[in-house]
Amino acid sequence: MIKMKQSRSIMSGLTILTLALALTACAANPAAPDPLPSWNSGASKQRIIDFVTDVTDSNSSTYVTASERVATFDNDGTLWSEKPTYFQLLFIFRQITLMAADHPEWRTTQPFQAVLENDWASLEAAGADGLGKLAMATQAGMTTDEFAIMVDDWVANARHPTTGRPYTHMVYQPMLELIDYLKANEFKVFIVSGGGIEFMRPWTEATYGIPPDQVVGSSFETRYEVREGQPVIVREPKMHFLNNKDTKPIAINRFIGRRPILAAGNSDGDFEMLEWSTGGDGARLGLLVHHTDAAREWAYDRESSEGRLDKGLNEADQKDWLVVDMARDWKVIYPDGD
Amino acid sequence: MIKMKQSRSIMSGLTILTLALALTACAANPAAPDPLPSWNSGASKQRIIDFVTDVTDSNSSTYVTASERVATFDNDGTLWSEKPTYFQLLFIFRQITLMAADHPEWRTTQPFQAVLENDWASLEAAGADGLGKLAMATQAGMTTDEFAIMVDDWVANARHPTTGRPYTHMVYQPMLELIDYLKANEFKVFIVSGGGIEFMRPWTEATYGIPPDQVVGSSFETRYEVREGQPVIVREPKMHFLNNKDTKPIAINRFIGRRPILAAGNSDGDFEMLEWSTGGDGARLGLLVHHTDAAREWAYDRESSEGRLDKGLNEADQKDWLVVDMARDWKVIYPDGD
Repeated sequence: MIKMKQSRSIMSGLTILTLALALTACAANPAAPDPLPSWNSGASKQRIIDFVTDVTDSNSSTYVTASERVATFDNDGTLWSEKPTYFQLLFIFRQITLMAADHPEWRTTQPFQAVLENDWASLEAAGADGLGKLAMATQAGMTTDEFAIMVDDWVANARHPTTGRPYTHMVYQPMLELIDYLKANEFKVFIVSGGGIEFMRPWTEATYGIPPDQVVGSSFETRYEVREGQPVIVREPKMHFLNNKDTKPIAINRFIGRRPILAAGNSDGDFEMLEWSTGGDGARLGLLVHHTDAAREWAYDRESSEGRLDKGLNEADQKDWLVVDMARDWKVIYPDGD
Repeated sequence: MIKMKQSRSIMSGLTILTLALALTACAANPAAPDPLPSWNSGASKQRIIDFVTDVTDSNSSTYVTASERVATFDNDGTLWSEKPTYFQLLFIFRQITLMAADHPEWRTTQPFQAVLENDWASLEAAGADGLGKLAMATQAGMTTDEFAIMVDDWVANARHPTTGRPYTHMVYQPMLELIDYLKANEFKVFIVSGGGIEFMRPWTEATYGIPPDQVVGSSFETRYEVREGQPVIVREPKMHFLNNKDTKPIAINRFIGRRPILAAGNSDGDFEMLEWSTGGDGARLGLLVHHTDAAREWAYDRESSEGRLDKGLNEADQKDWLVVDMARDWKVIYPDGD
């Protein structure tokens, strides 16, 4: 301890003051790194930076205290791709294939047969009811822990049919930077997706830096039971909540309990989330990712069965929402390059 | 910039190293303040400190990474008092009184009449159905924003019938310290209560330091609508979710998505939450607050209509749950003194 005291006395108050000044100067360095390096310079990038600056400048009339800085992001088509169809469907199709050996009847029963034969026309004809059957057959009755292991296996081993990439590598680098930028400015960032809440949670923290309790999605009914002395939660063959369109604000209110000041989506399923978020007082930002890049990703909007964006495009101007043009605004699409 | 470089060069590497050592020495100061000053020394306090030490010591076999440090707390009887009855019921009774002038029919209609006449026997006879009617009459049809204003008014102006205190002053100082201690050790702390989620959220951040999105509770159905151009969320006259007993683990899974390593409650309504939390692998702590202090708070357990604790007392030993004896373990009850 005596040695320690001597050591500390070497440092004069002046030295400490100098250190403080040096650190302050670093923070204010005009050559500070670009927070959004994968965004091309232009109106979209500038609008995002202006918004974050406005709500974090305590001298601004548009300042928002840190605890109120809530941002919500849709997932499919907003944070990762959704073609040739929603990745969660491709996950279910893979499970059908993996489980088919134990279910010989599936070879002649729709919609299972369609999955095994890659018969997309029949799958589309089977509609939401058919997809529900596939989901129940692969997911109901198992425990939440068993389901998470299945998702982990898919993340590790499944590959996208056209890019050959792991699905979690098909997330948008510019959106990852936006999430990090918001977090660095004391935003609390949530996913609010139509996708399954338990399908997303196993990988959102590693992929987006968003922990499970900040992920809101659709869900099955579950029940609690003690099996041979071990408590488990079991997935029931019944939907509990579908998180889409006007139920997104309801889920935001129920799970988050605060109205977002920034909401980002890409489809008409996100319309009410953006409407609810930007309808509040003060500075607000509604953002729509417009899929315009057939060369590097996919180009689609008003006529697409995934991520249909029609009403949103019609009303974005009037509602002052930022429409991000993927081809124009983004330098790269995926973290590994395009 | 040149001047800055000169300033920085004054500081040698040795000086920076010395500063680092000095700071480390400060952190390890054996005279560090007691993290739980309102807890009497003894087995309960020691067990809590040992648990937190075990899961945060990266050299320990019981170490838990920060992202997995989830703690859940019941509210009524665990973080604040619940006598003469649940404070949320007293809130509803007050609303009935405030609204009675506009409802002359309530003077002769049960269970409203019972509230207006302080007729507790009739209220008890009206049971859960009667309480549901009172809740619907005072809360359904209004927007979430209107409801929050009503709660804010109650927090600011209502007083407890026997202590004369604001209700949010009837929280347990030792539990506030426990929450702060856990947060200082990188736990994420959640409330998981049978109380209304929208009844708690307006005041939990100021009272407990727990933000709205970390509050889980019972809820009404809600609907989203746009009224004269303004989006609102409206409370429907129908329960959506009752968070009690075996639905607490379900809500934990749905809202938090991680299994707690610490769960604290006080009644058999918390039994499954503790069972689920302590049933996992590794270091776990289940904690029951036992109301043993008739002098400073209330004394009740197996026979109480609020916070009935019977099964929990029977099984706590076998399950190795910590039963906190309020009279023995707590130096003070409330932040303002007892």
